[in-house]
Amino acid sequence: MPETMSQAAQPLPHVTHQRAVFADGLMLDCGAVVAPLAVAWRGYGRLNADATNAILVCHALTGDQYVAETHPLTGKPGWWDNVVGPGKPIDTDRFYVVCVNVLGGCMGSSGPPEPMTDAEGRTLGRPWGTDFPSVTIRDMVRAQHRLMEHLRIARWLAVLGGSMGGMQVLEWAATYPEAVFAAAPIACASHHSAQNIAFHEVGRAAIHGDPEWRGGRYWEHGTVPAKGLSVARMVAHITYLSEQALSRKFGRRLRGAAALTFLEDVFEVESYLRHQGSTFIRRFDANSYLTITRAMDFFDLAAEHGGVLAEAFRGTTTRFFVASFSSDWLFPTAESRLLVRALNAAAANVSFVEIASDKGHDAFLLDEPDFHNALGGFLRGAAERLGV
Amino acid sequence: MPETMSQAAQPLPHVTHQRAVFADGLMLDCGAVVAPLAVAWRGYGRLNADATNAILVCHALTGDQYVAETHPLTGKPGWWDNVVGPGKPIDTDRFYVVCVNVLGGCMGSSGPPEPMTDAEGRTLGRPWGTDFPSVTIRDMVRAQHRLMEHLRIARWLAVLGGSMGGMQVLEWAATYPEAVFAAAPIACASHHSAQNIAFHEVGRAAIHGDPEWRGGRYWEHGTVPAKGLSVARMVAHITYLSEQALSRKFGRRLRGAAALTFLEDVFEVESYLRHQGSTFIRRFDANSYLTITRAMDFFDLAAEHGGVLAEAFRGTTTRFFVASFSSDWLFPTAESRLLVRALNAAAANVSFVEIASDKGHDAFLLDEPDFHNALGGFLRGAAERLGV
Repeated sequence: MPETMSQAAQPLPHVTHQRAVFADGLMLDCGAVVAPLAVAWRGYGRLNADATNAILVCHALTGDQYVAETHPLTGKPGWWDNVVGPGKPIDTDRFYVVCVNVLGGCMGSSGPPEPMTDAEGRTLGRPWGTDFPSVTIRDMVRAQHRLMEHLRIARWLAVLGGSMGGMQVLEWAATYPEAVFAAAPIACASHHSAQNIAFHEVGRAAIHGDPEWRGGRYWEHGTVPAKGLSVARMVAHITYLSEQALSRKFGRRLRGAAALTFLEDVFEVESYLRHQGSTFIRRFDANSYLTITRAMDFFDLAAEHGGVLAEAFRGTTTRFFVASFSSDWLFPTAESRLLVRALNAAAANVSFVEIASDKGHDAFLLDEPDFHNALGGFLRGAAERLGV
Repeated sequence: MPETMSQAAQPLPHVTHQRAVFADGLMLDCGAVVAPLAVAWRGYGRLNADATNAILVCHALTGDQYVAETHPLTGKPGWWDNVVGPGKPIDTDRFYVVCVNVLGGCMGSSGPPEPMTDAEGRTLGRPWGTDFPSVTIRDMVRAQHRLMEHLRIARWLAVLGGSMGGMQVLEWAATYPEAVFAAAPIACASHHSAQNIAFHEVGRAAIHGDPEWRGGRYWEHGTVPAKGLSVARMVAHITYLSEQALSRKFGRRLRGAAALTFLEDVFEVESYLRHQGSTFIRRFDANSYLTITRAMDFFDLAAEHGGVLAEAFRGTTTRFFVASFSSDWLFPTAESRLLVRALNAAAANVSFVEIASDKGHDAFLLDEPDFHNALGGFLRGAAERLGV
């Protein structure tokens, strides 16, 4: 492995995140109670007087609440800096944008790296680690709902997000329909497929197989399962890109001399992937990765509604905007179409667009003008309807 | 990891393989000489008096020479037992079928687990390990050509194989055109794509990251990098299947209780993948896996011919049968079409079929009657042409 790997195989630095703490905690789908419940979040723009201009952005597996500002660990721009901001498609001159670190995450919300508490909420002097209970997408949404009440927002103008963020959008629309005026599930599906579960399981096997994982108690040893987490990131990263995107970016270009060699990083694509792995471990917690991937795997909205997806949206008045990307093979367009058919069966107000892009799943994060125009138009239409 | 993993984390048992040994060795593309050169092989059927009925079957990345008989390590049927045998599509009542363990493999041919030798061919008392030189697909084919001379076969009636086996077929047709009457490259491509390289690199990173790999010298410690090799197999295995095949086989079925849990193997697809990983380590060597995946990554037939694929086949008289499978996303039909276009540009005799199958890349190994009929017909046609 590159030298940077061992240098980085250290616990994440401590960062103080803005958060709301709810002493009474949250009961999860698995029956466990997390108390107190910490919800780390960020807001962009200004909430108007009647609190009608609030948009909730839900982040993906490895995203966080730092949507449109410098990231406190990486020093890089926010993950949706090209979409959220003054004059941008999600215009913070007009809207108040909220983003919450998901339950089970590692950026300040209750999750594996946070101090463990007992049933009475007393700190036990060590992190939760793998004792953090199993979390579902619905649990994540319930935690966000607690913050919503705390912020005295009665209804989101819109809830939107891509990938796992889109799963949260669907769960919001199904669980709190009255609280969601408009919903934009992007590059997602109503359930995680067998292939998606399989790729996640490879990542988990890599983490479990790293002796530095130490049965999940790596924090006792001042180390982290850097190599396992890096491999998990590498395989996931491939699924975020299309073959076309990889070919265009790297093709079969060799690094340096073209000599036949056993050396690592012979091809540029390998060097790129290893870089993705080694930077990821500096900002993400391995036990959070296990927790959140499992939450995605469990997601099956139809199963929560008697096996009929349309039942999740029965009687909804939420207006939906569903978007997929043509080269996304992790959440292919066919799965968005299934979702649209269910919304149609529930007589929902839904528009659907498949964006032509060769950038794969990651397209929802990248410069895709057609997508940005469509999303911006959807939000403006919703705002005008509400007179915001 | 399952308990079976640690039980199996032992060196591969010793098996005596049938092989030919060439004292003068083989010079490889990288400039190194492997001497002596050991070529482990198996034959099925009977070579006729004028040696015109010989068919060479080339195996894939994790295959071996045990095509149509019980495997000496796993006790399972040969990997193409459904295709090769008396009365089967590759009919051993009529043809003499030869299969060679590839150079760099771990079933008796020269490769990382075999005893290392010095420039004079003297055994150095330890395995090659990662000191085994880098191997190319062309090197593998050259080693097979040595065996061909040894067997006094002047021309193969046909050379055929799927996946990496198909790469060898193409290399045979390009390097020894006069020795190949008919060629069937199946479910393959003329080069390894950036995405394919990326998936291989994940597997290599998992092996390199396993401390039991010990810089490639695990044989000194009586252990093997079982967890890393298992993860490598898991991710590769996903690429061999289609999403449809995974969904049909497993869908989102849970194992046992459906409780939300951190336990491993919650979904059947996970259990299946882990099983694939843990059985693989009992029959394959990690350093061979590194060597052979690298050989596939290096494969770029056009690059060997001035960047023009058609040049590889200029003036060929070989008759080609190219087959792809509609749901194969590792070697998609588009790559077979590129190959067919190059063969057309070289005015080659070529037929092409895309088999409708939802089984993914692995379809070439499975029961696909349309494929078996087409392959059998191609071979019979070639045999009739030669009067065999």
